[in-house]
Amino acid sequence: MAPRTAKPLQEFALIRGLKRHFARHTAGLVQGIGDDAAVIETTVPIWWHLTTDLLAEGIHFDLKSAAPRSIGYRAAIANLSDLAAMGAIPRYLLISLAIPKQVSQSHIYDFYRGLMKACRPYGVVLIGGDTSASKTGLFLSITLLGTTTKRRALFRHGAKVGDLIYVSGTLGDSLAGCRLLAQDTSRRSSKKNRSQFSQFHRQFLIRRHLHPTARIAEGQWLNTGRLASAAIDLSDGLSGDLRHICEESGVGAEVEIDNLPLSPACRAYAKARGVSPVQLAITGGEDYELLFTVSPKSHHALERQAKAQGYRMTHIGTIRPRRFGIQMTSQGHRQPLPSTSYEHFC
Amino acid sequence: MAPRTAKPLQEFALIRGLKRHFARHTAGLVQGIGDDAAVIETTVPIWWHLTTDLLAEGIHFDLKSAAPRSIGYRAAIANLSDLAAMGAIPRYLLISLAIPKQVSQSHIYDFYRGLMKACRPYGVVLIGGDTSASKTGLFLSITLLGTTTKRRALFRHGAKVGDLIYVSGTLGDSLAGCRLLAQDTSRRSSKKNRSQFSQFHRQFLIRRHLHPTARIAEGQWLNTGRLASAAIDLSDGLSGDLRHICEESGVGAEVEIDNLPLSPACRAYAKARGVSPVQLAITGGEDYELLFTVSPKSHHALERQAKAQGYRMTHIGTIRPRRFGIQMTSQGHRQPLPSTSYEHFC
Repeated sequence: MAPRTAKPLQEFALIRGLKRHFARHTAGLVQGIGDDAAVIETTVPIWWHLTTDLLAEGIHFDLKSAAPRSIGYRAAIANLSDLAAMGAIPRYLLISLAIPKQVSQSHIYDFYRGLMKACRPYGVVLIGGDTSASKTGLFLSITLLGTTTKRRALFRHGAKVGDLIYVSGTLGDSLAGCRLLAQDTSRRSSKKNRSQFSQFHRQFLIRRHLHPTARIAEGQWLNTGRLASAAIDLSDGLSGDLRHICEESGVGAEVEIDNLPLSPACRAYAKARGVSPVQLAITGGEDYELLFTVSPKSHHALERQAKAQGYRMTHIGTIRPRRFGIQMTSQGHRQPLPSTSYEHFC
Repeated sequence: MAPRTAKPLQEFALIRGLKRHFARHTAGLVQGIGDDAAVIETTVPIWWHLTTDLLAEGIHFDLKSAAPRSIGYRAAIANLSDLAAMGAIPRYLLISLAIPKQVSQSHIYDFYRGLMKACRPYGVVLIGGDTSASKTGLFLSITLLGTTTKRRALFRHGAKVGDLIYVSGTLGDSLAGCRLLAQDTSRRSSKKNRSQFSQFHRQFLIRRHLHPTARIAEGQWLNTGRLASAAIDLSDGLSGDLRHICEESGVGAEVEIDNLPLSPACRAYAKARGVSPVQLAITGGEDYELLFTVSPKSHHALERQAKAQGYRMTHIGTIRPRRFGIQMTSQGHRQPLPSTSYEHFC
């Protein structure tokens, strides 16, 4: 028997409340929440960029250990980061929720507060979505729209043999932060373990995991300045995401692992735990840094402008022919870059 | 502990397969599936219309009784119908799925086949989405984009006192079809029950439930011809959806229930089951007909053009001042139009 999809009256009240709290008007928005569809206007030639994520309870987040506000914040960052990797300006947001009975209305509002906290610095406006009951877990779907001028965006497919591979910021911090949080909630946690490195490093890594930043300004700078030949954001980890650039561009890559940018906190964590910081940097996901390629002739402009802007951009390798595969080198030794897989939990 | 969101390798293979089978190129599409975001181009001033639905297993569909292809088809129609109510041309589709282990890949493909079957007549192109594992049920999120020319769309908020209320097609068929299917799968089903009215009527109602039509052409005709002052699609049922028009327009309404368009099959079903066909028409959802208002001065043009086009459009009432409320009249008797609620299962 197929139940009808008509909404319970409480849902309409929830939608009205969310609209009142979180929706607002902006130039170009013709119709936000409250009709069959949201309507936006474009008056000049433009490229629209659309990214969407579906997040499932027990897969992407755990309501027992993560606050709804943090879940919302991180969900928004994942999508903002996709637009950063295209060099786009984020504009509009659609959010859908399937809500189990046990999730309270205040939790739903907290989730939206987290989402909008991440979006507000960029002026992103909530224009629509859907709410539904759920008989099982909480599910969230986010669709984010951004713009660039016509014929000007960063793609995964533009890398050429000889291009230099760069990464923004530092790598592996989010995974280290995730493991620290996991350890706090596990029974194995002990005072000794916690005190092995400084509270400062500890808080830095946890913040990098719970409150990552999307590299929106950096992406727009790379795009408008025509500095990058290809780009992707690091959501799956360096190993997985570099593979996407190579596949879409039909090339191989060589990563100089001694050049990978590591934060002092990540190094300290790795030392205290007896793990390889390079391993954290290669396999750790959700750093939301930008991985991009730069043609040799743009290399000096990139380095000069990055310095002027105060952006940390690190040269970590070179694009090679496809037959080279994807390899990592260290002090003359070369080996295939390991694939990450979903089985790696933090 | 927050698990990492990196995708299992099988998911990338699934995405590649879906892209190969269902994605295709079209003018204006710069980048489809395969980058951080989909990219579409607009060169002339235009309005974009965006609608999104999140469908939850056990709430919107039941995998035990409905085929994946049918679930996909009906999910697409719900979104196409939203665009029909705006008078928009459907263009692009994003689909996200959270997939439990027990759902096979062939089921996923069947779901997409159903979706694309509904979309293909309108040239809608699949440009992106997301796939995720699910530890509980199957969840689907659909985002559909359409266009109209600038400053030309149908909204819920345009109804004025004195406008005539119209509806396309016939009402209550989907609910009757849903009940027939539910009865087939329940233990109470008997041969006697089934033979109470003709197979022809039976099949008509079940088809109206499983294979509804979105009134895309009718919506565009109402919009471009400036025939309607407000419009909505009937997904929640006449009672609920008329209420949306009244709220957004700040008006009341009077529905002449003796004028409600009923199919011969719906009348026969109601007679055989001893239920009121008017009740089916008022509370039945998912008919995906258009409910719209027409100013008295456009009334003759609408009737004439509808006849010429072969569209069935029925005058069912009149917009009244807000203080009038939403009432139904029959042979001089007047009473409030009952509210539907989610608790009504078919």
